[in-house]
Amino acid sequence: MERVWEIAGNLGETHKQVVPITVFVTVLCFCLVVGHLLEENRWVNESITALIIGCVTGTIILLISKGKSSHILRFDEELFFIYLLPPIIFNAGFQVKKKQFFHNFFTIMLFGVIGVFISSPIIATGCWLLFGKFGINLSPRDYLALGAIFSSTDTVCTLQVLHQDETPLLYSLVFGEGVVNDATTVVLFNAVQKLDVNRIDGWTAVKVLVDFLYLFSTSTALGVAAGLVTAFVLKGLYFGRHSSVREIALMVLMAYLSYMLAELFELSGILTVFFAGIFMSHYAWHNVTDSSRITTKHVFAMMSFIAETFIFLYVGMDALDIEKWKMSKLSGWDSIGVYSGIMLLILLGRAAFVFPLSALSNCLNTSTRRSSSITFNHQIVIWWAGLMRGAVSIALAFKQFTHYGVPLDPVNATMVTATVIVVIFSTLVFGFLTKPLISYLLPHSSASNLEREPTISKEALKLPLLSFEESAATNLLRAKDGFSMLMERPVYTIHSFWRRFDDAYMRPTFGGPRSNELS
Amino acid sequence: MERVWEIAGNLGETHKQVVPITVFVTVLCFCLVVGHLLEENRWVNESITALIIGCVTGTIILLISKGKSSHILRFDEELFFIYLLPPIIFNAGFQVKKKQFFHNFFTIMLFGVIGVFISSPIIATGCWLLFGKFGINLSPRDYLALGAIFSSTDTVCTLQVLHQDETPLLYSLVFGEGVVNDATTVVLFNAVQKLDVNRIDGWTAVKVLVDFLYLFSTSTALGVAAGLVTAFVLKGLYFGRHSSVREIALMVLMAYLSYMLAELFELSGILTVFFAGIFMSHYAWHNVTDSSRITTKHVFAMMSFIAETFIFLYVGMDALDIEKWKMSKLSGWDSIGVYSGIMLLILLGRAAFVFPLSALSNCLNTSTRRSSSITFNHQIVIWWAGLMRGAVSIALAFKQFTHYGVPLDPVNATMVTATVIVVIFSTLVFGFLTKPLISYLLPHSSASNLEREPTISKEALKLPLLSFEESAATNLLRAKDGFSMLMERPVYTIHSFWRRFDDAYMRPTFGGPRSNELS
Repeated sequence: MERVWEIAGNLGETHKQVVPITVFVTVLCFCLVVGHLLEENRWVNESITALIIGCVTGTIILLISKGKSSHILRFDEELFFIYLLPPIIFNAGFQVKKKQFFHNFFTIMLFGVIGVFISSPIIATGCWLLFGKFGINLSPRDYLALGAIFSSTDTVCTLQVLHQDETPLLYSLVFGEGVVNDATTVVLFNAVQKLDVNRIDGWTAVKVLVDFLYLFSTSTALGVAAGLVTAFVLKGLYFGRHSSVREIALMVLMAYLSYMLAELFELSGILTVFFAGIFMSHYAWHNVTDSSRITTKHVFAMMSFIAETFIFLYVGMDALDIEKWKMSKLSGWDSIGVYSGIMLLILLGRAAFVFPLSALSNCLNTSTRRSSSITFNHQIVIWWAGLMRGAVSIALAFKQFTHYGVPLDPVNATMVTATVIVVIFSTLVFGFLTKPLISYLLPHSSASNLEREPTISKEALKLPLLSFEESAATNLLRAKDGFSMLMERPVYTIHSFWRRFDDAYMRPTFGGPRSNELS
Repeated sequence: MERVWEIAGNLGETHKQVVPITVFVTVLCFCLVVGHLLEENRWVNESITALIIGCVTGTIILLISKGKSSHILRFDEELFFIYLLPPIIFNAGFQVKKKQFFHNFFTIMLFGVIGVFISSPIIATGCWLLFGKFGINLSPRDYLALGAIFSSTDTVCTLQVLHQDETPLLYSLVFGEGVVNDATTVVLFNAVQKLDVNRIDGWTAVKVLVDFLYLFSTSTALGVAAGLVTAFVLKGLYFGRHSSVREIALMVLMAYLSYMLAELFELSGILTVFFAGIFMSHYAWHNVTDSSRITTKHVFAMMSFIAETFIFLYVGMDALDIEKWKMSKLSGWDSIGVYSGIMLLILLGRAAFVFPLSALSNCLNTSTRRSSSITFNHQIVIWWAGLMRGAVSIALAFKQFTHYGVPLDPVNATMVTATVIVVIFSTLVFGFLTKPLISYLLPHSSASNLEREPTISKEALKLPLLSFEESAATNLLRAKDGFSMLMERPVYTIHSFWRRFDDAYMRPTFGGPRSNELS
């Protein structure tokens, strides 16, 4: 290692990126092997492994360079938002079980949107009361930003704790919430930046909400458009004729383009790329050659996997950035007070919306299907699994409290270190306890899943049979039924209408099998 | 487009990379579609398309931004060497037909190493004589650097003009030369940088040669080691048991790590990653699950494809960087004189080694196999196909004549623009004419290939049959034969020894089928 640093010195200016890249890639390979060896361990997941390895690597680098090499350690929010986040979210959309996701769409939106609007003011007010006691003074804008920062759950870690096949309902709720929540948080954070803090009144909340609805709809539309354009081009030109490489390249590039276009027009790239993923896997994926299908499935998963591991490594290494620690002037006990105060606020803020909104969702769903009602044990798991804070929190904290990664005064430095500590603590402790908690609260989760699966499938199977033997008469009858059904069982009815539309118009135009199976 | 620039202005400092990335990804998608539509056209290849589209995009950007937005246009040598070159060369090693490559290893080394040492002084001297007439004064170091810069052939473009299946001998010779030549050029260029120009004597050439041999052997060893370690880890831990995503990620990361390690230790990353590619496809590839095999083949091809297209787009756009043109103070006629002078020197420098070295290679090979002798028509194609200059030339020119992409004085600006012009002209004109030239000079190339194939296979088939029914007696006999065979048919004998060793020791340890088929 000494030799490396010497050479690094010799290389000087010409290849200043070589050393950090080499270190990161080496540690990534190491994480991969360790993650593989710990695969069967039920306590530790990949995120925790990467976080711990990141901390250890950070310590080693700090010792070798005698507290100097903070360039390798510093978290770069641009790297995160432009290169690491898009593949993760796109892959989530690409691999998500679309049937489950859209069945629970209403509940997911309740948690992801209304949830943030409930938890964020609680955390902001709590921080204002809490920090006053420690003599920390921040502007009103900073407090509002803190509310947004600590309201963002960590999608990445959640994905690794819950499994789509073991607990499908929980997975789709918690993960779906995570994606929508990320988008809501980023939108809220940006709204706070633009806010005129001297004139906050009742209209402000309404304005933020309208702003959010606009962003949500435009971002979704952009993502859907990107997915459909890709599907249409792939179907129309049939790239596989010449080379399957071009097909794969086009899918990768279009996915990335949708994210960058959303960022360019100041929309939510996360939402856009998520919906682009859903529509690409639903249409475009069926227009490519067999080997391209296998390849895309694995490539997106691989890119997402590398990006996830990289983020946790990065957060782990960033925690050791000694300059921020020196700058923060809070005493030991005060620091512990601030950190635990924030943790309590996060627990409280999340509890304040998970339980009421679950009850509301159950209320609305009770007439339709029992399988999707959220039991109290489920609610506790949802509350708990969403407590982890991740890279989005850190990226936003860096945006708010630093100037190109360097905090300008001690209070800002304290805020950044507090965020890092909260993220590490929540990932380690809450992440560590989630798997045991699930197996304690939902002991037969995988068994009950097997029981539940057929009931959903039975309902789903009704439609294809009908639409296959479609005649004008049944069509008319169903149109009459449609309206009364919409009143009784809204989600299910919308879903079934969409399926008929998909089968009749969308799939013939954009590709995909006519089997009526959304999977 | 106007809207985009406005928004770009609004985004300000926070997301300064968003605009160029969006532009590049959009144009890349466009290139992909155009390339697909022109696939069956025999004159135009993907590189030429990308280059032309790059020029057009550059013009449009220049017009919209009224000659200001040179940030999008500027060629970044770090981006090229760290992110774009590694996937291209790795993929070349991964997909190359290893049997052909190693059969022609000796000839390839002649062209790739000795060739550069012949052509480089010719071009350097020629430039010195030529530039004097136009009143351009450069230091001796600059002239030597120019020799290296204009001696590097363009591997990327060659790959698209020749086809592995149509003209296997030519492909393996020209492509193999390209890879070795890239490495030699970079090494020579770096040697020139360190040279004490005031004390050049007979020893200097010897020192450069020794330096080169050291770099060649260490770089190769590092690449081989990276490939073998990956194969060993994949075989030992059997990652596919849990997820094929980790296998793919490990192969990608180890390939990249080998390149970065080579750069870190100031070796030739190109050679390292090329040999890592060869060894990974020979061993590691056989230790992964079926879907990982399909995925890796396609992923590496896709990454290489995107990087290649990106480079040509980039070169095309960089040609329109107006600042360099303003700075260069050469008059129109003088410029044309300089450019055509350099083109002539390149033609001359390449002719000076292709024909003599081909004769030498034929001389050495004549006793062994007639199939691998290089006819005069082949020699012309080799000479012609290697005339294209590419991104390596540009990257080296930027390194020599600019300070972070900005030339410091008019003479340096002239050198950079001359390089860009030579690259574009050679790619367009020589690239354009190569396909027709091949079909004129080697009219039955694909037919003769079909005839030649069996003769090679027959020879190759002898060995597996022998080694299957191996006994101590035949072994001893063959050991005696071995030495006399080594004298008569050196390449073939070394190859057959390697195969036996591979089958007996390497494959059982590092993975791979025991079928004795290198393919």
